[in-house]
Amino acid sequence: MNAVCLLSGGLDSATCLAHARREGFRCFALSFDYGQRHRYELEAARRLAQSLGAERHIVLPIDLRAFGGSALTADIDVPKHQSVEEIGTGIPVTYVPARNTVFLALALAWAETLGAGDIFIGVNAIDYSGYPDCRPEFIHAFETLARLATKAGVEGASRFRVHTPLIELTKAGIVKLASTLGVDFALTSSCYDPGETGRPCGACDSCLLRRKGFAEAGLSDPLEYPS
Amino acid sequence: MNAVCLLSGGLDSATCLAHARREGFRCFALSFDYGQRHRYELEAARRLAQSLGAERHIVLPIDLRAFGGSALTADIDVPKHQSVEEIGTGIPVTYVPARNTVFLALALAWAETLGAGDIFIGVNAIDYSGYPDCRPEFIHAFETLARLATKAGVEGASRFRVHTPLIELTKAGIVKLASTLGVDFALTSSCYDPGETGRPCGACDSCLLRRKGFAEAGLSDPLEYPS
Repeated sequence: MNAVCLLSGGLDSATCLAHARREGFRCFALSFDYGQRHRYELEAARRLAQSLGAERHIVLPIDLRAFGGSALTADIDVPKHQSVEEIGTGIPVTYVPARNTVFLALALAWAETLGAGDIFIGVNAIDYSGYPDCRPEFIHAFETLARLATKAGVEGASRFRVHTPLIELTKAGIVKLASTLGVDFALTSSCYDPGETGRPCGACDSCLLRRKGFAEAGLSDPLEYPS
Repeated sequence: MNAVCLLSGGLDSATCLAHARREGFRCFALSFDYGQRHRYELEAARRLAQSLGAERHIVLPIDLRAFGGSALTADIDVPKHQSVEEIGTGIPVTYVPARNTVFLALALAWAETLGAGDIFIGVNAIDYSGYPDCRPEFIHAFETLARLATKAGVEGASRFRVHTPLIELTKAGIVKLASTLGVDFALTSSCYDPGETGRPCGACDSCLLRRKGFAEAGLSDPLEYPS
């Protein structure tokens, strides 16, 4: 069966793609060039798609900078911290408006063209509790929408399921699952603000959560952080 | 109040934008360069945004051709007919997979950045009954999704309403409404397969529906059709 798998180049989406492959899906990996400041992520996505055996990989340009509004795309500084405890609650400034709605809508367009009824997305409601579009109720609402939105859904040919295998896992749980699935951690890129060479900053929310996840999982991260 | 108004350059979306202006909204018009074969439409959108007093107009490039699957974007011929009775039932080949889902998702991204809780879309369930994403149940599902997807929705700051003022109108009804609202028909472009100069073919589904609409409304269309 064909499935569209959203792939950012980070640890979570890589684990999600590896899971979909293990479940037996032929995976069509979809990444977005949305003007993210961490361009290195797209290189990581390309390497991961190949390494994890995706059938095909599309990097779709979509310039969300036209709308502005996030530290990941606009001229707002990515927050840096000394430790994971300093990460604030609430919706962080790295939130990109309606991002997962846009990404799932485009995944749906490709899925419909492929005749695929399955979409995989590596959202996580535990460590990213500040993002409204990472919650199970959002995913369920999108599944309802997808069935009403499409030819296949209307004709009853497809049930359009959005798979979220990581949604209830902690970062440590994701690291362990990735390890079991044979994800090459060295190919993944999690940092919101990496250097030109892709070296992680070690201090943004995403780096801190990743480092905590590896520590709690008792595994070592092959990425080199500034000391 | 701010509203994001989807604007294709056609008669329906122009009427929808004129209606939103009449309702007192400051309108942020959003068009998509999605690789449509009728490029002239985007010129029409630019002229209409200006003519109808939009606050701002963005034409966002988004290459749906990467996914293929429609006569409006890919290498499938646009069907031509002798009369409106020949238009088939069911979902036409001009249907672009998940188009309105993608367009509304992007409108939502802009709305969230603008702090706007209102989106206008000129969908019509009568003459476009073949398109699943023009139906009221699809629109309602999107409103539910939008409230769950966004910071403003989660914080209760916005109710996110998707306005569809044309949804129950016939094409004749839309022509009459447009006339009342002072839409300059000469600026609108409805044809799925216009010539280089934007001259309508007169024989695609969209031209036939438009011509029938003007005839039934008892108004004359300023566009010149081949005789």
